[in-house]
Amino acid sequence: MSEVRKLAEQAREAAGVLAITSTDQRNLALVAMADALVAREGEILAANRADMDAAREKGVADGILDRLELTSARLRAISEALKAVSLLGDPLGEVVSGHTLPNGIELTQVRVPLGVVAMIYEARPNVTADAAGLCIKTGNAVILRGGSLAVNSNLTMTRVLAEAAHAAGLPRCAIQAVESTEHAAAAELMSLHGLIDVLIPRGGAGLIKSCVENSKVPVIETGTGNCHIYIHQAADLEMARRIVVNAKCQRPSVCNAAESLLVDEAVYRKVLPALLAELSTDGVALVADEKTRALDAVDGIEAATKEDWGTEYHDLKMSVKVVAGLDEAIAHINTYGTMHSEAIVTEDYAASRRFLHEVDAAAVYVNASTRFTDGEVFGLGAEIGISTQKLHARGPMGLEALTSTKHLLMGSGQIRE
Amino acid sequence: MSEVRKLAEQAREAAGVLAITSTDQRNLALVAMADALVAREGEILAANRADMDAAREKGVADGILDRLELTSARLRAISEALKAVSLLGDPLGEVVSGHTLPNGIELTQVRVPLGVVAMIYEARPNVTADAAGLCIKTGNAVILRGGSLAVNSNLTMTRVLAEAAHAAGLPRCAIQAVESTEHAAAAELMSLHGLIDVLIPRGGAGLIKSCVENSKVPVIETGTGNCHIYIHQAADLEMARRIVVNAKCQRPSVCNAAESLLVDEAVYRKVLPALLAELSTDGVALVADEKTRALDAVDGIEAATKEDWGTEYHDLKMSVKVVAGLDEAIAHINTYGTMHSEAIVTEDYAASRRFLHEVDAAAVYVNASTRFTDGEVFGLGAEIGISTQKLHARGPMGLEALTSTKHLLMGSGQIRE
Repeated sequence: MSEVRKLAEQAREAAGVLAITSTDQRNLALVAMADALVAREGEILAANRADMDAAREKGVADGILDRLELTSARLRAISEALKAVSLLGDPLGEVVSGHTLPNGIELTQVRVPLGVVAMIYEARPNVTADAAGLCIKTGNAVILRGGSLAVNSNLTMTRVLAEAAHAAGLPRCAIQAVESTEHAAAAELMSLHGLIDVLIPRGGAGLIKSCVENSKVPVIETGTGNCHIYIHQAADLEMARRIVVNAKCQRPSVCNAAESLLVDEAVYRKVLPALLAELSTDGVALVADEKTRALDAVDGIEAATKEDWGTEYHDLKMSVKVVAGLDEAIAHINTYGTMHSEAIVTEDYAASRRFLHEVDAAAVYVNASTRFTDGEVFGLGAEIGISTQKLHARGPMGLEALTSTKHLLMGSGQIRE
Repeated sequence: MSEVRKLAEQAREAAGVLAITSTDQRNLALVAMADALVAREGEILAANRADMDAAREKGVADGILDRLELTSARLRAISEALKAVSLLGDPLGEVVSGHTLPNGIELTQVRVPLGVVAMIYEARPNVTADAAGLCIKTGNAVILRGGSLAVNSNLTMTRVLAEAAHAAGLPRCAIQAVESTEHAAAAELMSLHGLIDVLIPRGGAGLIKSCVENSKVPVIETGTGNCHIYIHQAADLEMARRIVVNAKCQRPSVCNAAESLLVDEAVYRKVLPALLAELSTDGVALVADEKTRALDAVDGIEAATKEDWGTEYHDLKMSVKVVAGLDEAIAHINTYGTMHSEAIVTEDYAASRRFLHEVDAAAVYVNASTRFTDGEVFGLGAEIGISTQKLHARGPMGLEALTSTKHLLMGSGQIRE
């Protein structure tokens, strides 16, 4: 039997035990996991140093090195996050619906774990602890498969977390990591329909596309965000300026940052010159349509291609387009967007309603930055990712997204006539 | 562009329009669709006669012919079912959750259509009208791909339904059928990730497996039901007898019928001889383990193979096994079951609780027949299928399973610090 299948069978067995643990057992295990990360800091930071050295030797970019690095302070923050998860309410056992059938059978639909959750993710080792914590909280066994850059950090953290959870009374295989960072191991995870209940990829568009196209296990697509800010003709232009600059520049590497700016023809001459100059001063590279370029507001604005309209730059870069009005803006967003987060700036009531209802996205904003799409901000207490699909969960996914339900029927001998 | 991709692009466009129709518009369209089925009965029955003639020529079995056949009375029942759907409450627009964020942004999560739903199904032409009706009710565009046996019936019904919906003001391409019954057409449907939001297969295990393994579009697995009745040592044995006979014999071809009987060692000598004789008299072919066979209750009980434990017979056939007790019963069910419907018969409180919580299935019963797992019976008003996966929906799927949600955020210029 392959390593991956063995992990999955062990996880399946652990899931059966986890499903009937009590809230207290799982919360105590989370606290033990949090404490172990701090108590065994030396081991974890040594493993991380090995990853950092190898990454530096490979010439990995500074931004990625920064995401890869663990420090004592970061480890403490990760530990605190696990404790915070232990304090959240338990979604398991919630009665979602229920009634007595006409024949007297009492039906209740209750919230239960998904079972076995697999995560495939890239550089950040904090995902290891976050994912393990959220899965244990929700009674799921988890199989972690991190990227090769963080392999030592991930395997060491997984061992520390799993040992702590086991010492606290949870099954030994509740938290496991795939050791191999070969593609074949990820491919095998994707093939284990029946053993794994859901696969959640977190990372770049390539990773997510590969999972969607190849997985036989149900996938929750996460994170690709080609987000737009649309300045409607009835916008408060000063508010629009603040929102665009915030959504583009405050943290350009994340999925809820804006990538594209749409401006109504009626106001573009008024709002764009100063706004483009400010973006440019902030270091934003601009690509734009002909009308915008003809303003000559900033030097060196390249012509936007069709590919630009569909691109999530993840960087200080933005595409700009003048649109005839609301209809064109909505059509453009529904064509090129990734159903993540979209915003209109307007003081017009009817335009705000139409935008909210006609734009097809997980989060649709009026007069606010798209940067708020986040599990913590939305009040979920934690986040395992942001779903950009419509099935199962949409937008930031908290604990509930890691659960399913079952129907319990208590009868007294009823048969069907 | 291929036929299938063209249908999908048209459906995508129609979905955008459907998503902003009113409850009244959609309900009026459903009534118009119902009326059209009756008004154009001649056309539909003629098409069905062509399918029946072709099927008879091919030597298709009587059971399948029966499912394929439409009559005036059946068409009226299908029409009435559409009217019943028009009278159900509208799930769209429901506020699922909401609150004001600390920064003043008002967040509401509202129920919206999934978008484009594709159904791949087999012999029964009534699925065409059911699926179209439930999708229109929930504001989804639907692409129907029925089996080759019912191709004339399906295409004619689709045309009648689509024309009626369009005449009632819905987009022309809200309801469409794939004309080709070639495998390549179904395979292409499965590949259209981004255009189709969900694929729901309804049919045999082979069809469902093919969709799960090949689809890039998210799939909801439906309907495979290897359901067990477990007679616990503390069962009311007369109740057990009635439940087993009902669950096996009342309608053996459906997914919530029982396929396998487990009996505690402590009571099998007492309960099995009469029960097996009754099942045999009712025409049930039996396969069993050695202990059961050694009872010599009925002639000709074959030895059950490992394959038998995992088989959904869809027929008057049942596997029988003596188990040591609750632990073995639960382990057997969680190994061989399909997470559909499972029942225990017992008067023991603790055994009932453990069975309810430890058996991993969409519907778990105490002292009742598994035959009740059904959208109508569960009070959903309608059913598009029974989900046997844990993601998105579990058990009978009503209108809600055909929806997603979106988050609407109304601000006043908020930016993220």
